[in-house]
Amino acid sequence: MSEKKIPYKIYLEESEMPKDWYNVRADMKNKPAPLLNPATLKPMTAEELGVVFCEELVRQELDNDNRYIEIPQKIRDFYKMYRPAPLVRAYCLEEKLQTPAKIYYKFEGNNTSGSHKLNSAIAQAYYAKEQGLKGVTTETGAGQWGTALSMACAYLDLDCKVYMVKCSYEQKPFRREVMRTYGASVTPSPSDTTEVGRKILAEHPGTTGSLGCAISEAVEVATHTEGYRYVLGSVLNQVLLHQSIIGVETKIAMDKYGIKPDIIIGCAGGGSNLGGLISPFMGEKLRGEADYRFIAVEPASCPSLTRGVYAYDFCDTGMVCPLAKMYTLGSGFIPSANHAGGLRYHGMSSVLSQLYADGYMEACSVEQTSVFEAAEQFARVEGILPAPESSHAIRVAIDEAMKCKETGEEKTILFGLTGTGYFDMYAYEKFNNGDMSDYIPTDEELQAGFDGIPKFPGNME
Amino acid sequence: MSEKKIPYKIYLEESEMPKDWYNVRADMKNKPAPLLNPATLKPMTAEELGVVFCEELVRQELDNDNRYIEIPQKIRDFYKMYRPAPLVRAYCLEEKLQTPAKIYYKFEGNNTSGSHKLNSAIAQAYYAKEQGLKGVTTETGAGQWGTALSMACAYLDLDCKVYMVKCSYEQKPFRREVMRTYGASVTPSPSDTTEVGRKILAEHPGTTGSLGCAISEAVEVATHTEGYRYVLGSVLNQVLLHQSIIGVETKIAMDKYGIKPDIIIGCAGGGSNLGGLISPFMGEKLRGEADYRFIAVEPASCPSLTRGVYAYDFCDTGMVCPLAKMYTLGSGFIPSANHAGGLRYHGMSSVLSQLYADGYMEACSVEQTSVFEAAEQFARVEGILPAPESSHAIRVAIDEAMKCKETGEEKTILFGLTGTGYFDMYAYEKFNNGDMSDYIPTDEELQAGFDGIPKFPGNME
Repeated sequence: MSEKKIPYKIYLEESEMPKDWYNVRADMKNKPAPLLNPATLKPMTAEELGVVFCEELVRQELDNDNRYIEIPQKIRDFYKMYRPAPLVRAYCLEEKLQTPAKIYYKFEGNNTSGSHKLNSAIAQAYYAKEQGLKGVTTETGAGQWGTALSMACAYLDLDCKVYMVKCSYEQKPFRREVMRTYGASVTPSPSDTTEVGRKILAEHPGTTGSLGCAISEAVEVATHTEGYRYVLGSVLNQVLLHQSIIGVETKIAMDKYGIKPDIIIGCAGGGSNLGGLISPFMGEKLRGEADYRFIAVEPASCPSLTRGVYAYDFCDTGMVCPLAKMYTLGSGFIPSANHAGGLRYHGMSSVLSQLYADGYMEACSVEQTSVFEAAEQFARVEGILPAPESSHAIRVAIDEAMKCKETGEEKTILFGLTGTGYFDMYAYEKFNNGDMSDYIPTDEELQAGFDGIPKFPGNME
Repeated sequence: MSEKKIPYKIYLEESEMPKDWYNVRADMKNKPAPLLNPATLKPMTAEELGVVFCEELVRQELDNDNRYIEIPQKIRDFYKMYRPAPLVRAYCLEEKLQTPAKIYYKFEGNNTSGSHKLNSAIAQAYYAKEQGLKGVTTETGAGQWGTALSMACAYLDLDCKVYMVKCSYEQKPFRREVMRTYGASVTPSPSDTTEVGRKILAEHPGTTGSLGCAISEAVEVATHTEGYRYVLGSVLNQVLLHQSIIGVETKIAMDKYGIKPDIIIGCAGGGSNLGGLISPFMGEKLRGEADYRFIAVEPASCPSLTRGVYAYDFCDTGMVCPLAKMYTLGSGFIPSANHAGGLRYHGMSSVLSQLYADGYMEACSVEQTSVFEAAEQFARVEGILPAPESSHAIRVAIDEAMKCKETGEEKTILFGLTGTGYFDMYAYEKFNNGDMSDYIPTDEELQAGFDGIPKFPGNME
């Protein structure tokens, strides 16, 4: 076997960087189910969606046919600021594990937002600017999405209003200050700046907020303010489309060196990273050109794929958004305080849900202490301190590599390292002090979540 | 002019990465003055230095002759984990400033330590390991050096004891936790684990510590524990040697694209980054092969080059270390609470001091509010949130670019972007809230510092 020497890190040349996003829906026989208007239970029209989202993004949201969508030059220029993201051969981890497996990871954390979220933030901000809007609104929990959007808006000179879950606003002042440095206004949610916020404050004066409430506030402001629209960092089809840049770049780099992954692993919250990473590989599988094992990794505390139901449900706990068909724990499900904030979401992208339902993808769940053990091991040999979310993928990649050690198989494992943990040191501190615990919801707790899923003919009956 | 299209970022191929460090002392006619034993006022011998430092590092410290020193393979392997660092063309900043100047920066922040410190940490840890030592001790203030050393020691399976200035230990718990995640023991200084610590605690029960005290503790532990040595992240000749990797890589990348900088700018604390960045360019200037303007930028609150004296002085406030000839404000000088912790050092590398005294380099000082203004402007257009230290160089790079705008000159400006500001958000918060102030020491305050510099024939008399 004459194999080209694989460098530690593969960086594409600027000229090799993708010019198109890849739309996996074009290759799906069973398309993802459309969003439904909760009042009429009919598919949301472009017009209805256009009240909340930018026109071009609505087009992308509804486009199940075009396989490639060109990345506008201005977005490609922005991508050049922090991309290409390196594809890293984890030589040091392999040596530490003494595994015959070859391990690769696509590292998306080399930018100030600290994650892959920037890939979609710049796209959404760009189309808002193109439409002549003044600004955008959004919510943020842990803060990665809010930071990414702030950066994109600063670059394009667009106003950015972020509703940040109040407990995060208070507990993560540093994330908040990064957003402010990029010129965003950051409001703790619930706030008295919106009707829904005032209502919630009146009903629950001491509340520290929730993502659902922050979404409701951001949507209200977007739909009630001239020249504003709402943007969202995960779950939506358009987000997976933008995030396909992760997978397309990875595939170009791998093809260049003749590498073919056997297993592709990603953490799964709303699905933006996993969907982006696997898209072009999944396309090959859907077209029957190649086969890969895809593994979605979710926290045991919030197991939407492994223990959820496949049904129409609200995307937000506030129930103001359209219904999406997805694997869900119910929009009222409250996951335990797992430190991977980005994975604490009750549902899953409709695209990934359909692919999972059709058997194209596997899923598994892991507990957070074992996730942090993997994170620490990875950090010490590979040098990068990973985000808790990303570390879910590391856990399973290490497990798969150890299986190879037992069997002697030289499998090629690829996983997505979505971001860095620099703003998650409180969680690491808990782990370092031995104070971290695991929690797996009981069947009764899951049932309570399922009970909140809307009932209508064909759904949860 | 047919100019090769310069990409946004130049990454060297693995095969192009430097195999040698460059020792600028070999090209200096006036060598840096030797370290003196404070008791005898005679040059420190290799034997004396060997009590505190590893043997090979002592050799490097004293080597004024060899121009190139080979980088051991194991260190080069580690470098491959986070290097090459990109040389970035600041197209977006140029456009924002509407300047004809071409601006480049070498970005050293793409690693978990968040700065260039890792370049020397791995080298020092490596030689300690090679010597068969069990571990190393060091001090850290802001925490970048301590983090870098922890990472290097984790990689080499070497014990790492960090004495962290108590106020930082308490105010920067996240930095502390990064070090602990990498397996280092972190002790707030002063502590009761050393004689000098107990003495200081008895005399000043409420003290929150100082870098000088932490150095004294780390040195005491190193010299009193079998199998341990002390390591330091700046100031020393050996550190500048290791940091030459910054400049050598930069020069290879620039030569590849036919770029010749007119002005090279770096922030200056102890001198590790500035010395590393300018080394190979300075070598050309010293050999009469090329000319460059070098600008050292220091905080107006701690102006060792611009307002200090050139004399033998203690490297530490505890006065346990050898005397170094350098531009100094006196080891007792206490700089105001500037947020660029890495630049709050009373002295300056002997190498850089000699070059400055001989007129090969310029220096200027800037105030911190103007530094943070530059940092914010840079972050918004270039996407990277810079460390306060690095932002000193950004300030002057922008100022020089604006001069070009006035004169119409198309100068090429290169500066060192040493790190990211993710652990400096408290400072950014102050700035965002308009609560940041400037402080310039009075002549009387400086004189008090000078009064503490040791007096002996030929020194400060």
